[in-house]
Amino acid sequence: MGVYDKLNLTMLCDFYELTMGNGYFENGYKDRICYFDVFFRKCPDGGGFAIAAGLEQIAQYIQELHFSEEDIAYLRGRNLFTEGFLEYLKDFRFTGDIWAVPEGTPIFPNEPIMTIRAPAIQAQLIETFILLSINHQSLIATKANRVVRAAQGRTVLEFGSRRAQGADAAILGARAAYIGGCNGTACTISDQLFGVYAGGTMAHAWVQMFDTELDAFKAYCKMYPNNATLLVDTYDTLNSGVPNAIRAFNEVLKPMGITKCGIRLDSGDMAYLSRKARKMLDDAGWTDCKISVSNSLDEYLIADLLHQGAQIDMFGVGERLITARSEPVFGGVYKLCAVEQEDGSVLPKIKISENVGKITTPHYKKFYRFYGNDTGKAIADYLCVYDETVDDSGELEIFDPEATWKTKTVYDFTAKEMLVPIFKNGELVYKFPTLDEVRAYCLQQVDTLWDEVKRFDNPHTYYVDLSQKLWDIKYGLLKNRKKK
Amino acid sequence: MGVYDKLNLTMLCDFYELTMGNGYFENGYKDRICYFDVFFRKCPDGGGFAIAAGLEQIAQYIQELHFSEEDIAYLRGRNLFTEGFLEYLKDFRFTGDIWAVPEGTPIFPNEPIMTIRAPAIQAQLIETFILLSINHQSLIATKANRVVRAAQGRTVLEFGSRRAQGADAAILGARAAYIGGCNGTACTISDQLFGVYAGGTMAHAWVQMFDTELDAFKAYCKMYPNNATLLVDTYDTLNSGVPNAIRAFNEVLKPMGITKCGIRLDSGDMAYLSRKARKMLDDAGWTDCKISVSNSLDEYLIADLLHQGAQIDMFGVGERLITARSEPVFGGVYKLCAVEQEDGSVLPKIKISENVGKITTPHYKKFYRFYGNDTGKAIADYLCVYDETVDDSGELEIFDPEATWKTKTVYDFTAKEMLVPIFKNGELVYKFPTLDEVRAYCLQQVDTLWDEVKRFDNPHTYYVDLSQKLWDIKYGLLKNRKKK
Repeated sequence: MGVYDKLNLTMLCDFYELTMGNGYFENGYKDRICYFDVFFRKCPDGGGFAIAAGLEQIAQYIQELHFSEEDIAYLRGRNLFTEGFLEYLKDFRFTGDIWAVPEGTPIFPNEPIMTIRAPAIQAQLIETFILLSINHQSLIATKANRVVRAAQGRTVLEFGSRRAQGADAAILGARAAYIGGCNGTACTISDQLFGVYAGGTMAHAWVQMFDTELDAFKAYCKMYPNNATLLVDTYDTLNSGVPNAIRAFNEVLKPMGITKCGIRLDSGDMAYLSRKARKMLDDAGWTDCKISVSNSLDEYLIADLLHQGAQIDMFGVGERLITARSEPVFGGVYKLCAVEQEDGSVLPKIKISENVGKITTPHYKKFYRFYGNDTGKAIADYLCVYDETVDDSGELEIFDPEATWKTKTVYDFTAKEMLVPIFKNGELVYKFPTLDEVRAYCLQQVDTLWDEVKRFDNPHTYYVDLSQKLWDIKYGLLKNRKKK
Repeated sequence: MGVYDKLNLTMLCDFYELTMGNGYFENGYKDRICYFDVFFRKCPDGGGFAIAAGLEQIAQYIQELHFSEEDIAYLRGRNLFTEGFLEYLKDFRFTGDIWAVPEGTPIFPNEPIMTIRAPAIQAQLIETFILLSINHQSLIATKANRVVRAAQGRTVLEFGSRRAQGADAAILGARAAYIGGCNGTACTISDQLFGVYAGGTMAHAWVQMFDTELDAFKAYCKMYPNNATLLVDTYDTLNSGVPNAIRAFNEVLKPMGITKCGIRLDSGDMAYLSRKARKMLDDAGWTDCKISVSNSLDEYLIADLLHQGAQIDMFGVGERLITARSEPVFGGVYKLCAVEQEDGSVLPKIKISENVGKITTPHYKKFYRFYGNDTGKAIADYLCVYDETVDDSGELEIFDPEATWKTKTVYDFTAKEMLVPIFKNGELVYKFPTLDEVRAYCLQQVDTLWDEVKRFDNPHTYYVDLSQKLWDIKYGLLKNRKKK
């Protein structure tokens, strides 16, 4: 896997994970088993769902987890940590359990997309990287899925490396964009590492390097007759670029019997220029020539261009995808939900907040997605305590956890458990699918959502409900805290 | 330098750099010397300037640049590249020259912040990484500088790792934020690698781990009596958190004679809570206790809180800084500005566009910043052809390149050349300052800007002018192109 194997990112953690770890160690909580949930509170861009991604990099990180001698020396130099704790870190490795939804799964607010069960220090240390990976890749996969849906079946390529927030953002952003449905990337290393198909032809510099635009186009067609997409806006799109492209196609490709080729527009009014260019190409007999565009595109601009009748076959989407510009933060959080007592029983924990939306759902949980047997569509997600089981052979009354009088009876449904085991006692037990499998799974699962959940403006809020038992525990803890 | 030394990011390039490289190789342009400028067109957030950052990582990347056997094998597998070109890549290294403004320099639209002179293939290949590094770190340094200025001298810590767009975005984002003026970070590895001071105390999980909030606070004060900042909003800030913090300080710190301590607020109304908490702490005699806040802050919220009389000593700024949420794209571009002819003369090149703002300033250039000798303030930036020199002993009439009738005579000024040599014939010739030196330089240089340029709303547009000679060349090329 090239460069990525070599990274030890153990020290990529918030410093407080270490001060707390040291404190747990010295206060006898070292081996206390804790449960943490990863969840998010709001879909980006006012959307109805998000796409989970970033799990494979977490697995890699967990397996690499260790403190080098340099790391220990740095920590010792901070004069905050006990020698006992530093000694403990020397042999540190992850020994806990992790469950997660597979990459590519559509996910909704307030459900656990990952649960970690581990001794306190371990569970705490991995918080930062887990959140970082989930937050970054889910953000980009979610955005990409929106862009791809806006393009209505046309090809979408991720073009944003140069505007990405660092090397990982480019490399793993291309990976996440592919999961969300993009057809490829411009980022070469993402192809090499992950098999995200990388493509691209020329920049303006190519055109400027030659004495004339026509020379540049002909040279390119000669080099890459089967892959000739010419950038036509260096000087003047309709008066120079497109006519020169047609001449180059006529002079170089036609004698070779090649009819497939392309032009790319990178500036100007895409709706107008693409229609004009299409007509010029068609009139010249180049009906198989594809038109690509790229210029600060996103899902809104793409929808708008298509609405205006733009003649576009392929979208290159750069900075607004690779940074998720319209909402560049995915707010996944990592919250303690339970601890194990000495007798092995699980004690639920809650975090109360003055912001009601920040109150957590306690306990070690699992969750189901209910699919209607008639439609195949997802009906609701259902969170319950770890020891509950849903019987999907009959009926089940579910209710809105915030407006409990709103109930719904589900029947003729299949209940699918969404969290799958990733690590067991520190060992990786999950076989990662290929990236193409993840992408296909994502597209298929998005297909199980109703259009009302998928629309961009004011989507229907998908049901994420609690079992009666879980609801009782949550509101019991809230009341109890209130009394104190 | 730990993990970063190991990365070979040669393949982190847009695929078209390689298809063009192959084309240059086969068309006899392999050794053609090209000049590329890096510049940007618009300051983020409507600001009056930006801060340059990311140069040190570019130098590292350039020095590491090489194609491994795996890289060559991957490229061969794409069936697009000639064996001659692949052979050439085996011994590929950078042999050109690079000039750049030092990290921490305030920069303005449309001036070259970096110039690359190299054979075509080399100059093209490094485009993606150079832009990525400059765009990412300049974005964050610029944002951080805004946040720090809003905080009016109070401490600002970067807290955003968990919401960063990948590992680099966290690690190098903390570095860039420090350059821009932040006092530290929560990201441990950024301290270890770059000496960005990392700090942090506790999360809500620490409080939840103990039987009571008071137990948790007392345990923490005992562990870290000299560094006790207690998170007071796990259950109820004013009714539980602050009173328990005061009890813990009284019971643990007071007997030790310690008066320095802190509390942190992470939710709720910061203006109200901080004033109330300040009064409770003062009334209890803990006047040296610092109040930190953190909760989706940015420059606008900080300015607003201070305007409302919030009693805050330290801001922890997370997701909105590490992603530059309000404008997460820094639009640096990389444009061909000249090529060398066989006789060694430099031929200027221009890129024309239907969007007037996208027309480039041609030629191999240098640029000066003029500082007034009386005030020490920056007056204007002045771009000229590489062989021009500014005599700052007399007067100089400068003019607006877009509204040429707007002129200004500068006198009693010092002209400073801003681009410094970084690489010469492929060798690093620049001695990088320490990160603390970069940060100090940045703050000092921002101080040379007038308040009118620094304000957040409708800042004054700083002058970036062209010499008469450069202007004549640019508009000559434009007219000439028009005639064709």
